[in-house]
Amino acid sequence: MLTAEIIAIGSELLTPEKTDTNSLWLTEKLNEIGIEVMLKTIVGDDELRLLETIKDALHRSKIVILTGGLGPTEDDITRQVAAKAVERELVFRQELEAELRVRFRRWGREMPEINKRQAFVIDGAEVLPNPNGSAVGMLFEHDETYLIVLPGPPRENQPMFTDFVLPVLQKQVGEVVVRRRILRVSGMGESAVDSAIAPIYKTYESVRTAILFNKTEVEVHLYSKAETAEQADAVLAELVEKIAEALGVAVFTTDGETMEQVIGRMLKERGKTVSVAESCTGGLIGRRITEVPGSSAYFIEGCVTYANEAKIRTLNVPRETLESFGAVSAETAEAMAKGMLERSGTDYAVSVTGIAGPDGGSEEKPVGTVFVGYADSRGTKSLKLVLPGDRYLIRWRASQAALDYLRRQMLKH
Amino acid sequence: MLTAEIIAIGSELLTPEKTDTNSLWLTEKLNEIGIEVMLKTIVGDDELRLLETIKDALHRSKIVILTGGLGPTEDDITRQVAAKAVERELVFRQELEAELRVRFRRWGREMPEINKRQAFVIDGAEVLPNPNGSAVGMLFEHDETYLIVLPGPPRENQPMFTDFVLPVLQKQVGEVVVRRRILRVSGMGESAVDSAIAPIYKTYESVRTAILFNKTEVEVHLYSKAETAEQADAVLAELVEKIAEALGVAVFTTDGETMEQVIGRMLKERGKTVSVAESCTGGLIGRRITEVPGSSAYFIEGCVTYANEAKIRTLNVPRETLESFGAVSAETAEAMAKGMLERSGTDYAVSVTGIAGPDGGSEEKPVGTVFVGYADSRGTKSLKLVLPGDRYLIRWRASQAALDYLRRQMLKH
Repeated sequence: MLTAEIIAIGSELLTPEKTDTNSLWLTEKLNEIGIEVMLKTIVGDDELRLLETIKDALHRSKIVILTGGLGPTEDDITRQVAAKAVERELVFRQELEAELRVRFRRWGREMPEINKRQAFVIDGAEVLPNPNGSAVGMLFEHDETYLIVLPGPPRENQPMFTDFVLPVLQKQVGEVVVRRRILRVSGMGESAVDSAIAPIYKTYESVRTAILFNKTEVEVHLYSKAETAEQADAVLAELVEKIAEALGVAVFTTDGETMEQVIGRMLKERGKTVSVAESCTGGLIGRRITEVPGSSAYFIEGCVTYANEAKIRTLNVPRETLESFGAVSAETAEAMAKGMLERSGTDYAVSVTGIAGPDGGSEEKPVGTVFVGYADSRGTKSLKLVLPGDRYLIRWRASQAALDYLRRQMLKH
Repeated sequence: MLTAEIIAIGSELLTPEKTDTNSLWLTEKLNEIGIEVMLKTIVGDDELRLLETIKDALHRSKIVILTGGLGPTEDDITRQVAAKAVERELVFRQELEAELRVRFRRWGREMPEINKRQAFVIDGAEVLPNPNGSAVGMLFEHDETYLIVLPGPPRENQPMFTDFVLPVLQKQVGEVVVRRRILRVSGMGESAVDSAIAPIYKTYESVRTAILFNKTEVEVHLYSKAETAEQADAVLAELVEKIAEALGVAVFTTDGETMEQVIGRMLKERGKTVSVAESCTGGLIGRRITEVPGSSAYFIEGCVTYANEAKIRTLNVPRETLESFGAVSAETAEAMAKGMLERSGTDYAVSVTGIAGPDGGSEEKPVGTVFVGYADSRGTKSLKLVLPGDRYLIRWRASQAALDYLRRQMLKH
């Protein structure tokens, strides 16, 4: 199997604020054609260290990818150090300078002389055009070893990699295809998911399985390797079906959709509308539903009734309900959903009221206590949860619980 | 100056889903005592590669920190490879095994025999206790070079590093203190900020300045190095004051607060309340305001009037306003804010209406067109923006613009 190394270059990637993330996308694309990443290095704008790093990588791996350090300033040393590492000269390419001048003129200014540096490339390297920036990339091949030099910004290096590098590597690895499917699961823990499905996925040797926990969802990533996309997809389809059956209604997508996309698709399919009444989530559920383009087709209105008076005024929650049961109660959650349904005239309404903390908890209702309400023309329902985590996570998990409750209700009718 | 290298170990860190993030926190802590990180490597569970990586690092740097790979399974190879790299044996420590057995019994089960591996440590290394997990850390010193071995989970390695590693390194670097201040700026671009303040910060040689762009804010990070915290703080205070003066009202915090924290603090100081009326942001402004603990003191209510009918019904926006000017207009934004103010009885109300895309744009009102409205007892105001970015960024930037507009109005009165 072919393996790759990625070297991210730039002193800013060695600060507490920033690290290399280009490698995640690159790894995904490499994995898709059956190439694994064996090592990643993050190195600053330091000639000696960078030279040593590139040389070491070229000794170990057939594919070495550099990102960053191709700008026009003195700090940008990738170009000359990469040339030194493969013992070649940098050569000036007149036509690249001409293109740069044209490009700058289109931006309404003259090319600064310093940008001339970007017209130098490694002797013998293939030049990779950059329609989105001034730094071209380079692909240098020697003895079936590839040194690939890409600019740092994702919107520059991603199209460059897809258009000019992947086809070359694909030819090298031959007919290997890796396809991915992502299942997402709500309402089950990571280890419960794993013990339910490990006996299934372990029988598929050509599939790599990764189980990840992401705030409130468990994700099952399946990578299937085969000679053709059809073969890989067929294996995946079979495995996905078995896993979905084993996990049941907890699986909300077998195609990598987000919860809000699933909700949106279901509402559209049913020709239904929804409204939301929020307290402790403060607008998060509305924000998530409307994150989906075109959500105005099914999302009509949301209310964030943070104060009790707002719950009474805007959602018609009876004052007695608040006084007898408290703002954080099943009764209030259901009254909020009912009030929202009546106000908006939607087919469904969901609500959330709870204690996100850090303060406001009691022995009876600790921080994390959340009630999710639901209303449709048949009446109201609710669900009590005690969610772990800090304020941010409790709010996120409450929003997820509300969306999942809506999903499960829709599945019933 | 002392420099460090960080090596993150684990094959899962070489997948598209996950990368090392431990190094960010470690870098911050190292920077605070004047140690810079010169190189970071991410390597899988591969003995030969890991051995080579550790040896190379020990040749280059006085401080080498390993994270991860200390679990009890066969995949966890850090322990034996680290020992090999410094040419020492692993020795069995009876008392560590005894502690592990006690710990497991407290969890209500017997220690699996496999965990015995975690009682082996590098001969001559200092053992770093781990109250939060079963893997102890190690600190091995030889010729003033430090090899530090930490478990992978942050809640295990962070207290361990703070309690047992930092004091040792601090002694090594002597009396150097680095203090940080963060200014955040709204309504100015990265390069505008830099050209306004570069002449100021460049005269401070003991301060490192990093200017970062974060979705919609420019952040100015200042690291001041001195012999005492007082000295470092004094230099920072002077520099912060000069920068804040040069940038004026655009600086919304000189203490690293978020925009929503600043809004909350200002409302509390003034004893005022706020409500929000949202359209294209879908609840994001409410969510951001309520992200702050204790926000119920000043946030009363929010409405997400996504459909036109909701704007009429809930916010009393006149139908004629929507028909004559459109839902995305200064008139509608102001009517929304006015309606929200009247509905909620708050001191201030802010509103947003706009086109977040990808569809819905026109020549006259392209995607990114956003109106921010504001109302108080004196009347209404609005602001037109054309924001760049995708749906996610346009919505984020619109929410920021609304919060910043509220802030600037409060500053005036």
